[in-house]
Amino acid sequence: MTTLNKEIRRVCFVINSRANYARIKSVLIEMQKRNDCEIQIVVGASGLLFRFGKVVDVIKRDGFKVDREIYSVVEGNEPIVMAKTTGLAILELSQVFSELKPHIVVTVADRHETIATAIAASYMNIMVAHTQGGEITGSIDESVRHSCTKLSHLHFPATKRAYENIIQMGEEKKRVHMTGCPSLDFIDENKSNNLNDILEKRLVNPKNILNLDFLLVLYHADTQYYVEASDSTREILKAVNEINLPTIWLWPNVDAGTDFISKELRKYRDTNPNSKIQFVRNFSPDEYITVLNHTKCIIGNSSSGIRESSRTGTPSITIGSRQFGREMAKNVICVSKTDAKIIKNEIIKQINHGKYEQSNLYGDGNAGKKIAEILCTTEISINKKFVTLK
Amino acid sequence: MTTLNKEIRRVCFVINSRANYARIKSVLIEMQKRNDCEIQIVVGASGLLFRFGKVVDVIKRDGFKVDREIYSVVEGNEPIVMAKTTGLAILELSQVFSELKPHIVVTVADRHETIATAIAASYMNIMVAHTQGGEITGSIDESVRHSCTKLSHLHFPATKRAYENIIQMGEEKKRVHMTGCPSLDFIDENKSNNLNDILEKRLVNPKNILNLDFLLVLYHADTQYYVEASDSTREILKAVNEINLPTIWLWPNVDAGTDFISKELRKYRDTNPNSKIQFVRNFSPDEYITVLNHTKCIIGNSSSGIRESSRTGTPSITIGSRQFGREMAKNVICVSKTDAKIIKNEIIKQINHGKYEQSNLYGDGNAGKKIAEILCTTEISINKKFVTLK
Amino acid sequence: MTTLNKEIRRVCFVINSRANYARIKSVLIEMQKRNDCEIQIVVGASGLLFRFGKVVDVIKRDGFKVDREIYSVVEGNEPIVMAKTTGLAILELSQVFSELKPHIVVTVADRHETIATAIAASYMNIMVAHTQGGEITGSIDESVRHSCTKLSHLHFPATKRAYENIIQMGEEKKRVHMTGCPSLDFIDENKSNNLNDILEKRLVNPKNILNLDFLLVLYHADTQYYVEASDSTREILKAVNEINLPTIWLWPNVDAGTDFISKELRKYRDTNPNSKIQFVRNFSPDEYITVLNHTKCIIGNSSSGIRESSRTGTPSITIGSRQFGREMAKNVICVSKTDAKIIKNEIIKQINHGKYEQSNLYGDGNAGKKIAEILCTTEISINKKFVTLK
Amino acid sequence: MTTLNKEIRRVCFVINSRANYARIKSVLIEMQKRNDCEIQIVVGASGLLFRFGKVVDVIKRDGFKVDREIYSVVEGNEPIVMAKTTGLAILELSQVFSELKPHIVVTVADRHETIATAIAASYMNIMVAHTQGGEITGSIDESVRHSCTKLSHLHFPATKRAYENIIQMGEEKKRVHMTGCPSLDFIDENKSNNLNDILEKRLVNPKNILNLDFLLVLYHADTQYYVEASDSTREILKAVNEINLPTIWLWPNVDAGTDFISKELRKYRDTNPNSKIQFVRNFSPDEYITVLNHTKCIIGNSSSGIRESSRTGTPSITIGSRQFGREMAKNVICVSKTDAKIIKNEIIKQINHGKYEQSNLYGDGNAGKKIAEILCTTEISINKKFVTLK
Repeated sequence: MTTLNKEIRRVCFVINSRANYARIKSVLIEMQKRNDCEIQIVVGASGLLFRFGKVVDVIKRDGFKVDREIYSVVEGNEPIVMAKTTGLAILELSQVFSELKPHIVVTVADRHETIATAIAASYMNIMVAHTQGGEITGSIDESVRHSCTKLSHLHFPATKRAYENIIQMGEEKKRVHMTGCPSLDFIDENKSNNLNDILEKRLVNPKNILNLDFLLVLYHADTQYYVEASDSTREILKAVNEINLPTIWLWPNVDAGTDFISKELRKYRDTNPNSKIQFVRNFSPDEYITVLNHTKCIIGNSSSGIRESSRTGTPSITIGSRQFGREMAKNVICVSKTDAKIIKNEIIKQINHGKYEQSNLYGDGNAGKKIAEILCTTEISINKKFVTLK
Repeated sequence: MTTLNKEIRRVCFVINSRANYARIKSVLIEMQKRNDCEIQIVVGASGLLFRFGKVVDVIKRDGFKVDREIYSVVEGNEPIVMAKTTGLAILELSQVFSELKPHIVVTVADRHETIATAIAASYMNIMVAHTQGGEITGSIDESVRHSCTKLSHLHFPATKRAYENIIQMGEEKKRVHMTGCPSLDFIDENKSNNLNDILEKRLVNPKNILNLDFLLVLYHADTQYYVEASDSTREILKAVNEINLPTIWLWPNVDAGTDFISKELRKYRDTNPNSKIQFVRNFSPDEYITVLNHTKCIIGNSSSGIRESSRTGTPSITIGSRQFGREMAKNVICVSKTDAKIIKNEIIKQINHGKYEQSNLYGDGNAGKKIAEILCTTEISINKKFVTLK
Repeated sequence: MTTLNKEIRRVCFVINSRANYARIKSVLIEMQKRNDCEIQIVVGASGLLFRFGKVVDVIKRDGFKVDREIYSVVEGNEPIVMAKTTGLAILELSQVFSELKPHIVVTVADRHETIATAIAASYMNIMVAHTQGGEITGSIDESVRHSCTKLSHLHFPATKRAYENIIQMGEEKKRVHMTGCPSLDFIDENKSNNLNDILEKRLVNPKNILNLDFLLVLYHADTQYYVEASDSTREILKAVNEINLPTIWLWPNVDAGTDFISKELRKYRDTNPNSKIQFVRNFSPDEYITVLNHTKCIIGNSSSGIRESSRTGTPSITIGSRQFGREMAKNVICVSKTDAKIIKNEIIKQINHGKYEQSNLYGDGNAGKKIAEILCTTEISINKKFVTLK
Repeated sequence: MTTLNKEIRRVCFVINSRANYARIKSVLIEMQKRNDCEIQIVVGASGLLFRFGKVVDVIKRDGFKVDREIYSVVEGNEPIVMAKTTGLAILELSQVFSELKPHIVVTVADRHETIATAIAASYMNIMVAHTQGGEITGSIDESVRHSCTKLSHLHFPATKRAYENIIQMGEEKKRVHMTGCPSLDFIDENKSNNLNDILEKRLVNPKNILNLDFLLVLYHADTQYYVEASDSTREILKAVNEINLPTIWLWPNVDAGTDFISKELRKYRDTNPNSKIQFVRNFSPDEYITVLNHTKCIIGNSSSGIRESSRTGTPSITIGSRQFGREMAKNVICVSKTDAKIIKNEIIKQINHGKYEQSNLYGDGNAGKKIAEILCTTEISINKKFVTLK
C-alpha cells in the first residue's frame, strides 16, 4: 500500500473487550473531532458477548458507528481455546481489512485479539499502531505484547520505561511516541460523576452499599497457572468475606481458567445468601472509573489496579504473578502468595492508609489528543528497520 | 505444563516447506540417534503440496515418521491469503499440540507457519524453540521473525550478529544459543554426490545440461511489493536468456504474488520452445545442495543464495529488497534495482570470478548436533523475563 | 475407502451435547460388549463446556475412552454463531477423521454439529450413519435433519412415520432400519433409581423439594424466532410461579437466543429470593430419566418432553413452534401461543390427569442392541442411489 | 427475518467457479434489468483463482459489481481439503451475509461451496434459493445436491424429472419451479460468435487448430475414486492422441485428485512436444458455448457434456461414474470403463454421426427470465413444511 495523498486517511480501531475500549476511547473522541481522518471501528471477541459486558452496546451508546462485528471467541476453559480464538480472529479480521482498506490499524494491549489484529494487518501490508507496548508483566500477555511490538510500525507506550524497552527491542525512534495511556484521560473529568446513580443502575441490591465504604475486586485467571484459579479464588473470597465490608466483585474476563473462577463465585453466592459481596457483570468505562475512585481498596490482578488506580490514587492490592514486573506507583501493595490471611492483612493496611497522591506514571491525561494527532499526520510507512544498538 | 521428570522428553518439529526441512533435517537426524527424547513431526502448508515439491514424501523417504499432516494453505495470489493461512494453521496446530502434548515445539525461520506454530504453542503453555531468529532482512518476514523471537523460550541463532540482536531484544542469555544454521551441516558430506544422477532424475531434458556450465535461479515474490513481481520476473528472464547458458529455474514458493511470477514463467516457456531454461518443481535438500555446489552462479532472492551458498562458496546475485540487511559473505553481489542489463553484467562478473572460499558465517557444520543436545537437556521453562539492558 | 475385510471395524461416534449422549449411550454400551468392532468417541461443542453440563466428564465416568476433544463453539447470542460453529466443527472434524480413519461415522439428530459431522465424513468418503432422521418438527433443525439424511448412508429412524419419510426422500430401503430411539432403552432399568439421591447431588437446596410434587422445565430458544425468547420465558416463568409447586428448571442449550432466556432466568432469580424454582445446570442421562419419571409435568419445548416422556408416561406441555409437527403420544398437550394464563391452565390439567400409559411410539427399549448389530455387520458402502418412487 | 415490504428486495448470488457463473449469468442479466430488486454478488473459492480461470475478472468485465471476494480454497489433493474448504467457506459466508443482509441467497448446483452457502444462509434465517436441484448423478455431488435441496426454500430445477424428485423429497409444490437451466439461455444468441477470434485469444498456438475439425476434453476427478484419476487420464490421453485431431483440453476443476490429473497432463505435454493437444486454462461462459458448438465431440465427465451439449446437439462421450444417472439427450454416449480402446471407438462413432438435433431436455432458453421473476416476486418465507406423500 503506497501513501495515498488525496484520500482521507482511514484509521481502523479493533476493540475486543471492555478493557480495550476504556483504553482507547479518548483517542476515538479526539479523532472524531478532526476532519482529516475517518474512524473505522471493528468490535470483536468478548466485546460482543453478554457474559463479558457486551461493550459494543456502550460504544454505540457513546455515539460511535461500529463498522464490523466479529464473533471470534471459541468457548472453553482450556488454553487451547485462546489459540483457536486467535486463529479464528485472524481469518475474520483479514477479510474485514480487505474490505475496509484502512491506512492504519490500531491494536490495543496484549491479548489474543491484539496479536490477531497485528498479524492480519501486517501480512496485508497495512501499517499497525500499537498501544501499551513495552510494559513488563507476567503471564503469556508478556510475550504477546512484545511480539505485537515487533509486528507494529507505530508505538504509543504509556510509560518512560516502556518507551525505552521498545527502543531496546530495535524499533526506530521516529516510530515510538511516549504518549501515556488513554485510559487515564477520563479520570479528572469523571470525578464529579455520581456514584450512587451508577450503583443503582448496575447493582441488584444497591441499597446495601449506597453511601457506605466498599471494596472492589477484579480477579482474572493467570492462563499459565489456570489450574490454580479455583484455589486462589477461594482464598480471596475468604479474605474479603472476613473483612465484611460491602464489596463489588466483577466477573472475570474470558480466558483459560475463567470457568474455575466463575464456579467458585457461584458456589460462594449460592451458599452465602447474606454475604455483602455483590457480583456485577459490567460497568461502562466511565462508570468504572467512578467506582474505582470511590472504593476503599481495589483487590485482584487486573491491570486497572495498577494503571488507572495510579492516577485515582486508589489503594490497591495486586495478587499473584499476572502483573509481575509491571511498573507501579506507591498505591500498590503486591502479594505474591495467594493466601487469605496475608491478603486480609494487606487490605486492612490499605483501608487504614486511605487515598494516595495522584501519580503521572501512566500518563498526564492527554494521551488521546497526542495519539490522535500522530495517527492523522504520521507518514504511512510499513518499511521498518531493526535498529542495532551498539 | 510442569516439568515432567520421568517421562521421556517429546520434541515436536513443525515443518511447512522444502526450505524448512532443509534447515532442520540435521537436527532430526541427531535427535533420532539419542534415546532421551521422542521426535514428533508435523508437516503442513506447502510441505504437503505437489505444486511446491511435497516435501512430506522426502521426509518419509528419509526414514522419519510423520505424526500429523495439516492442510492449511488458503490458495490465492493476494496478501490476504497469507493472513488466512496463518489463522487456519493456528486452529489446526493448537489441536495437534493438545493431542501430541510435546514438551518443546520447534519452529523454523520466519514465515506465516512459523508464527502460527509459535502462537499456538505459547498460548498452550508449551515451550517454543526457534531457529534463524535475530537475522535482519527486508519484507514482512523481518517483522514475523522478530515477533517469533518474542514468543519463543529457546533460541538457536545462526550468526553472531543474530545472537546479539536476540539479546538486545531482551531475551535471557541462558535461552540463546549460537549454534549456526543446520542447513549447512550437509554441505561437506554432500560434496561427493553425483550431480548427473540428480539432473537425470529431476529434469525433463537432462541431456541439455549434463556436464555443462549452468545457472540456478530462485526468485520468490516480495510480498510487500508483490504487484511488481511480473515486471521483475521479466527482467530476470531477459538477463538469463541473454547469458544463454543452460539454466535451472525453480518454481517459486507459495506467497502473495506467486501467480504473477508463475504466469511470466509459463508465458516465457510457451513462447521460447528452444530456450535453455528448464523449470524444476523440486529437489530434495541433499539434491539442492549438490546443484548449488555446481552452479556457476545462483541468481534471485532466495535466502539460500546467501546462507547455504556462503559455505559452498557459490557466486551469488541477490536481487531486490527481500534479503535487504541480511549478513552476507563475500560471494554475494546485491542488485537493488531489478534491471535486466545490470543483472546480466553482474552474472558475467560472478561467472568470471568463479568459486569463492568457504565461509563459516552461517555455521561450522555442527549445528544439528548442538541443537539436539540443548533440546534434550535444557530445563523446560516457559517463564521468561524481559532483560533490560542499561 | 474400500471395504477392509481383515481389519476390525472402526465406528466413530461424534457426541456434541448432553442430549446427544443420552440418545446414543445404549448403542455405545452394546458396541463395547462386542469384539468385532472398535469404538472411537469424539466429544465436541457444548459437550465440553461447563455452562452446558460438560457431558464429556459423564462419558468418561461411564467408562468410555474419549479419543478426541474438539472445541468448536463460537460464542454469541446471534444466529451467525450457529453457522460459524458449523464451519469450525467441519475444519476440526475432517482432521480428526483423517487421523482416526473410521469405517463408519455415527451422527446424532439434527443440530449444527450433526451436519458438520455428516459433511466432513461424506466428503472424505466415509460412510455416515444417522439417528433420529425422518422426524418432522419446526425450526431450522427440521431442514438440517433432512439434509443430514441426504448426506448419510445408513439410517436409524425412531418411528414408523420417520422411516417412511426417509424412504420417501429417496433413500434405499436396505439402508433404512427402524430401530427406535436409543434414549428410551434406559427407561425401564432406571425406574428404580433413587430420586432423592439425585436431587441431593444436583440441587443447591434439595430439602425444598425432597418427597414433594414438583414440575420440570426445559425451555430452549427457537432459533428462527430467537428475538421472542425473552417474552416467552417471562410467560412461562409467570405460569410456573403461579402454580407455586417446587420446580426444577434446566438452563437452556447453547443456541441463538440462549442469552435472552438466561438473562430472564437470572433476573427472576435475583428478584424472587423465595421462589420455589431451582435452576440446575446438569443431570447425567440416567439422572434425567429418573427426574422425568417423577415429575408431575414437564413443561417447555425440549424434545424429551415428547420422546422420552412418551415412554415414562409423564404428562407434558409442549410450547411454541419448535416441536411443531413431531409425532406425539397421548401424554403431550401442545400450546402454540406462549401465554402465561393458557400455560398455567394446561399445567393444572396435566397435574390432575397424572401419569399416562407407557407408549412404544419412539421405541421398545432395544434400539441400542439393534443399531450396534447393524453398525458391526452392514456392508461398508458409500455408493447410494436415489430411489424414484412412481 | 420478516417480510420487508418497503425495502427493495436484496438477492445475493454466491458464485464459486467458472461453471457456477455460466449457469446463473442469464439470471443476473435479467435481474439487472428490473427495478424491484438489488443484486448482490459474492465470488469465492476457485472463482478467484488464476489456476481455475479466475472467473471474477469475467464477471467484472461483464459489467457486474462484485460485493465480496472470499478466499476459501484450502489447497491439496486429498478429500479432506473439500471438507475444510466447506468449513472455511461457512465461516466467511456467514460473516458476509450478516453484513449484506440479503432477503434471498441463491446457491448453484452441488459443490462444497453450494452447501456452505446453504448452511450459512439457512442458519441465519435467510431464504435460500437453489438451482439444479433434483438431478441424479454419481459421486459425492449427488448427496450434496439433495442435501442442499432440503436446506433450501425455493427450487429451480432444470428438468421435469428433477422437479418430480424434489417434490418426492417432501418439498412444498409452491416452492418448486420448473424453469430449465440458465446455462442454456445463451446458446442461441452465441451461435454467431466467431470461433476463430476466441481461439486466437485463448490458445498458445491457435494456427494449429483454426478452421480444422477439433475435439474438446474436460475431465475432472471423481472424488470418490480420486486415486484412479491418474490411470483414467492416461487412458483418455491415449485415445485422444491416437485419434490425432487437434484437441482443446481444459485443465480440471479444483478437487481431490486434480493434482493426479494435472501431473499426467504435464507429463504428456513435456514428452509429446508435437502433440495436437493444446491445454487451456479458461474460456468465458460465452466463449465456451461457442467452442462447444463447434467441436466434433466433447469427451470427459463434465456436466456440460450432457447439459449444454444437449442443446447445441454436440456429440458427447461421458466417461466413468461421475455423471452416472444424469438425464441425457440422444447426443451422449456413456462409457463406464475408462479404457483407451473403447473411448477411441466411441469418439470415432460420434465424429461419424455428426451433430444431433437440439433438445429441450434441460430448458428452452428462458430460464433466466423465469427465475428472475420468481426471485423478485415470491413471498419471503423460511417456514417450510415436509409434505408427506401417501
